[in-house]
Amino acid sequence: MTDIIIVGKGPAGWSCAMTARMRGLSVQVIAPQGDAGQLKLAERIDNYPGMPQVSGAEILKRFREQAIALGTEERNGLIRQIMPTGNGFMVLVENDVLESKTIVLAMGAARQKLLPGEEEQVGRGVSYCATCDGMFYRGKRIAVLSSTEQGVEEATFLASLVGELDYYSLKKHDITKLPELAKVIDEKPKGFGRDGQDLTMTTDQSTKKYDGVFVFRAGMPLGMLLNDLQTEGSYIPVDRMMNTNIPGVFAAGDCTGKPLQVPKAVGEGNVAAIAAAEYIAKHG
Amino acid sequence: MTDIIIVGKGPAGWSCAMTARMRGLSVQVIAPQGDAGQLKLAERIDNYPGMPQVSGAEILKRFREQAIALGTEERNGLIRQIMPTGNGFMVLVENDVLESKTIVLAMGAARQKLLPGEEEQVGRGVSYCATCDGMFYRGKRIAVLSSTEQGVEEATFLASLVGELDYYSLKKHDITKLPELAKVIDEKPKGFGRDGQDLTMTTDQSTKKYDGVFVFRAGMPLGMLLNDLQTEGSYIPVDRMMNTNIPGVFAAGDCTGKPLQVPKAVGEGNVAAIAAAEYIAKHG
Repeated sequence: MTDIIIVGKGPAGWSCAMTARMRGLSVQVIAPQGDAGQLKLAERIDNYPGMPQVSGAEILKRFREQAIALGTEERNGLIRQIMPTGNGFMVLVENDVLESKTIVLAMGAARQKLLPGEEEQVGRGVSYCATCDGMFYRGKRIAVLSSTEQGVEEATFLASLVGELDYYSLKKHDITKLPELAKVIDEKPKGFGRDGQDLTMTTDQSTKKYDGVFVFRAGMPLGMLLNDLQTEGSYIPVDRMMNTNIPGVFAAGDCTGKPLQVPKAVGEGNVAAIAAAEYIAKHG
Repeated sequence: MTDIIIVGKGPAGWSCAMTARMRGLSVQVIAPQGDAGQLKLAERIDNYPGMPQVSGAEILKRFREQAIALGTEERNGLIRQIMPTGNGFMVLVENDVLESKTIVLAMGAARQKLLPGEEEQVGRGVSYCATCDGMFYRGKRIAVLSSTEQGVEEATFLASLVGELDYYSLKKHDITKLPELAKVIDEKPKGFGRDGQDLTMTTDQSTKKYDGVFVFRAGMPLGMLLNDLQTEGSYIPVDRMMNTNIPGVFAAGDCTGKPLQVPKAVGEGNVAAIAAAEYIAKHG
């Protein structure tokens, strides 16, 4: 079991990893490949102490190298869900299950905007995990909504189970490898609702009924990632030791709120690592 | 009138100055010449993102240069007192009176008097940071000297690394939770020296050799500087925006409490600058 799984490859995540390694803890830093939010686009940052006039991309590169040199394990993949197990956490990364004693959420400020009605229909037809829920739709009629090529992969798996599969692109991506069963619908999804027992999806052109709808975006909505995680708007409230409302789950960096600054993120990652180390020392 | 007077020339102070300058504020950083607490003695710090394997002195030098290049004004002198004036603060530096709209306290964790020979052995076996230096003593023989229960916590971490651990109480405190490895030595440490390559510690009864000695003391009492400043033990309690109990007075870095770490101090300095900028925008 890993000591700390860190969600996010920004300044908070790498800083947390470095301090955790200096405390002798095992650390996995996980995020979709290449994901580091807005920072990698920043041309010049002047107020990060020790690196004057540096680009965001250079900061990320050097932080990553330093963390990895200290023994941080890096992993690419979207974290679909995090579940408390009583003495730790199970973390579903793509289709793998990892275990850790503590979690540090450091996924930045970018939030996945949901479609109107989406949140209310989760568990009532809307799903974010083909592996978890695909079996419930054997022979049925489903839709896949995706903003990345991940949707194509998931559709390939789902096509082996379901009867009908409509495919919607939330953002333009390569769909040349879609399975034969998938029917590409060139409409823009606008929201979800119900018609009696049935799940409905409205597009810019029509309203359709589906037994299930699978949605794939570049990140997971916060509340979906971790049940019962308390949020305030799009931020995760923390105390001065970076504790969230869930014991063993810490948060650091832009996801804890303003100011959205590299030095602040680095400091919070550092504190979260110490707090996680103390949590592990206490709970074993 | 200066926008921000920053008390202290450590990582929190310089970080605060850099961000304040990027917000277009005038900044004076004030401390007695050469004062930068324990950090300047740290031989090697591994967990400050962007500066791998750097000395404390090098961190301080580069932070200072960067802050000054951004237009920070530096001033040497002991601050004797800070007084609210209704629309700002009067700051007594040696025998001069300065005025500022806001104050950022970043004077570090004040330490008590050192043992004879202690300062000379810092970086040569004597350390104040288990997180920073613990790894260098894997399997070795160390001593922990502490005046508070913090020493018990640090000993618990160190016990997972070292081979032998002798524990000395500088002042009476609760040692019931000491790890099994720790051997309580009922002698009074009197000073440090060397025997050839080896670090030695003299007590009231004997002289011993250790590979390393970790020293933990409580800070000096605060509050003489600024009337009515609320403190908790030797620390200044702050909220997530670094507000103290006095409007317009912020605190950052080691003086706000544990963990006493460079990345944490840098992050808090950054947040204090943003908070001071918002305070000035609101109160003029």
